[in-house]
Amino acid sequence: MAASSLLRALTRRRGCATSGAFSHYQHHLSSPFSTTSAAAAAASAGARDEAGKGFPGLGPTTKGEKARVVVLGTGWAGARVMKDLDTDGYDVVCVSPRNHMVFTPLLASTCVGTLEFRSVAEPLARIQPAMSKSPGSHFLLARCTGVDPDAHTIDCETVTDGQKDALEPWKFKVAYDKLVFACGSEALTFGIRGVTEHAIFLREVHHAQEIRRRLLLNLMLSEVPGISEDEKRKLLHCVVVGGGPTGVEFSGELSDFIMRDVKQRYAHVKDYIHVTLIEANEILSSFDVRLRQYATNQLIKSGVRLVRGIVKDVQPNKLILDNGEEVPYGLLVWSTGVGASPFVKSLPFPKSPDGRIGVDEWLRVPSVRDVYAIGDCSGFLESTGKEVLPALAQVAERQGKYLAQQLNSFMKAGGGHANSEATVDVGPPFVYKHLGSMATVGRHKALVDLRQSKESKGISIAGFVSFIIWRSAYLTRVVSWRNRFYVAINWLTTLLFGRDISRI
Amino acid sequence: MAASSLLRALTRRRGCATSGAFSHYQHHLSSPFSTTSAAAAAASAGARDEAGKGFPGLGPTTKGEKARVVVLGTGWAGARVMKDLDTDGYDVVCVSPRNHMVFTPLLASTCVGTLEFRSVAEPLARIQPAMSKSPGSHFLLARCTGVDPDAHTIDCETVTDGQKDALEPWKFKVAYDKLVFACGSEALTFGIRGVTEHAIFLREVHHAQEIRRRLLLNLMLSEVPGISEDEKRKLLHCVVVGGGPTGVEFSGELSDFIMRDVKQRYAHVKDYIHVTLIEANEILSSFDVRLRQYATNQLIKSGVRLVRGIVKDVQPNKLILDNGEEVPYGLLVWSTGVGASPFVKSLPFPKSPDGRIGVDEWLRVPSVRDVYAIGDCSGFLESTGKEVLPALAQVAERQGKYLAQQLNSFMKAGGGHANSEATVDVGPPFVYKHLGSMATVGRHKALVDLRQSKESKGISIAGFVSFIIWRSAYLTRVVSWRNRFYVAINWLTTLLFGRDISRI
Repeated sequence: MAASSLLRALTRRRGCATSGAFSHYQHHLSSPFSTTSAAAAAASAGARDEAGKGFPGLGPTTKGEKARVVVLGTGWAGARVMKDLDTDGYDVVCVSPRNHMVFTPLLASTCVGTLEFRSVAEPLARIQPAMSKSPGSHFLLARCTGVDPDAHTIDCETVTDGQKDALEPWKFKVAYDKLVFACGSEALTFGIRGVTEHAIFLREVHHAQEIRRRLLLNLMLSEVPGISEDEKRKLLHCVVVGGGPTGVEFSGELSDFIMRDVKQRYAHVKDYIHVTLIEANEILSSFDVRLRQYATNQLIKSGVRLVRGIVKDVQPNKLILDNGEEVPYGLLVWSTGVGASPFVKSLPFPKSPDGRIGVDEWLRVPSVRDVYAIGDCSGFLESTGKEVLPALAQVAERQGKYLAQQLNSFMKAGGGHANSEATVDVGPPFVYKHLGSMATVGRHKALVDLRQSKESKGISIAGFVSFIIWRSAYLTRVVSWRNRFYVAINWLTTLLFGRDISRI
Repeated sequence: MAASSLLRALTRRRGCATSGAFSHYQHHLSSPFSTTSAAAAAASAGARDEAGKGFPGLGPTTKGEKARVVVLGTGWAGARVMKDLDTDGYDVVCVSPRNHMVFTPLLASTCVGTLEFRSVAEPLARIQPAMSKSPGSHFLLARCTGVDPDAHTIDCETVTDGQKDALEPWKFKVAYDKLVFACGSEALTFGIRGVTEHAIFLREVHHAQEIRRRLLLNLMLSEVPGISEDEKRKLLHCVVVGGGPTGVEFSGELSDFIMRDVKQRYAHVKDYIHVTLIEANEILSSFDVRLRQYATNQLIKSGVRLVRGIVKDVQPNKLILDNGEEVPYGLLVWSTGVGASPFVKSLPFPKSPDGRIGVDEWLRVPSVRDVYAIGDCSGFLESTGKEVLPALAQVAERQGKYLAQQLNSFMKAGGGHANSEATVDVGPPFVYKHLGSMATVGRHKALVDLRQSKESKGISIAGFVSFIIWRSAYLTRVVSWRNRFYVAINWLTTLLFGRDISRI
């Protein structure tokens, strides 16, 4: 077998004979490959041994080893819990189809080129360096497909995105001492036909990339001779459905892009591009009425058309409102909130009133042992008497922080391993304190609402000062120095040179 | 028709009544839309009028108007000619499936995250601002499908990349006064089966993106339990075919990435990743023997396996060499040089000895009037007695510069319009002076060969000083200040923080 001879050759020690095509340079066969086969064998010994024991994957830990925390997801909640876990006492295994955390509040800015895509994504290996170095910690590019709480194992399947010639996906199991669900939510479509097929959500970097490619494609196509006036106007009609912070910020960024960049770079078609924001109720309903009014005025001033309506049906290049009106579009962005994903719905756990994984006040899934749920995928059980918290980054992050502290203290008290937490004091329950809300509305303007709830008193301001607060707050919350630096540089170059419009 | 009523509403003047869903905010209908419908109508008048005249596209110019230069392509040659054309006298129309120029010598660096993709792409609108502002200049996202030199027109078809819900491609014509072919070349596969299907070229930004996604996918999959030692080694075997500057620079970047970043960020699998460079002859055959030897030693030192061999067949996860040896791979990059594209072959013009569009010493296509060809798609006709120039960025750029000067001087002498150049002195022919060659070989080392040809004397140096020269030379040649700035920032952050490994 020539193939296996090459594979052997690839780890052969210096001075071993090679044959055929490889012999020409054989005397150069160099040190980086020659001293490492022993280490390589050792590094993969764990997985193979366990396979040998008949466990297809990462087998249970023993008392002498570090306990294993398995985290499902790399969003705000999952990233924060992994960042704060004490890796002297725990091995961390993350199972997720995404190897980075996305800084979601800045995602809207990447669609129009204000920020680079890379600036809003933080690789997990930077968030928790042990993941790539510690022998028992791993990032596994896979989806969890099921859980067996009695056996303390999860079932997983690798993710390959259908990349050509990639390996066939394979299944494996991971045994856990503690299991953390942080697998997030799914965009709500309310069962409206055509949304998934024709609209673009704004939750992942690849969504932002698709929006950007689509927008630039439409701008360029509308300049090509042979297109009618009506088609041109349709192609350049950007419709956003949903007037929450995401929809409003995206509309603001888009109108800013149109007023500053399209006017200059696509002067031929600048009069055909329009943004329409469709919302069934009030925009930014979580903000106070004064800020809402300010946002409304600001959006209208920058050319965003606000429409109150309910979408009934989405077709390839037009949508139908509940009053029968047809709205043609060239780009449709959908941001009407989030709900429980099919995976969460399929889990054999009690649920919160809105269908998320039900947790008690310590963020535990009470029907089973050693299982926790944080972030958008979880909600307080009705029996706790607490309201389900909103699906916000700050909720998820605070829960991740709390849970890491809990798990660290369990571990220190000797309750790190499976089925051993009963001996440990669970400490105070998780309490959420809302720090306030922020949203940009384009043209260097933002809203900042520092009240703890809609009813309480506090600071709520709008305008350029808010915009500065918004940028500073986000800059200090972006996870690493590298990304903070990149975001600052992106903002600076956009200010100096305008946004980038290459369609790559 | 509700749809057309919305379209009408979108350009309606302030104060007009709207109906249905739009009435709620109608009193806010704002100024940006209200004053521009006249301008919009004027802006598109050109195309519509011509369509009215029965010309489906951009019709011929008249003596009173600016003459129109049509450039096919946005590579080094096309970008340079458009940058230098005098837009006071010419309208510039570019037809290309890509709205940006790619700074090809830095493309290899983007595959491993040393540089951002955006840093090596320059939007055409920045290279020639008239393209987006001047009423008669346009960038058209389309492919040229044919040319009628007698009628002075080209046939085009729009490009939509199969983006979902995009408009159906449509056909149109563009009349030219001067036509410049700058449509580049195609990667050579020598008819080897499977190359196009399984290998990745390294000529466009999307190639670099694919290589990066593939590399990171393989690194992550190889850590998932359930993969065998052999599969892991195969998955992490990166094979580069072709030892020219592109292949060598990519191999160097890759081994640098492995030694610096994989060792840190993918410690679990670092001993399984290897780079093999396959070349049928000498690597870097255009450099002198001393530099070649230096490059060979440097590559071997950084762990690149050099193999002399000819690839006979490429299969999904292995390739077969001419001696029958099988080489399994997880990533296959193909860079064995370039040749004439099918479009160039299909053109009804005489060809250079190697099948490119044949030109005379003034870069004219001699059999027809007002047609020029520059860059990789063109070559001197045998009758000129000159050798075909190599397919290099510096040849293409120099030809673009020369041709712009020629066209500008024709225009000033009254020969800008179609069929009028006969009255004008053609000036001196194009003479190419080779400025030297550069290539990096990883680990902060580069080769610089400042001799005009392999036979002549001159400076040829290798090492760290060359690396500094290489970086400085490229920094000063990247087209805009914005990109120069970004490239410098990228290099700095890679130095400070290491490369980025998020797979987005």
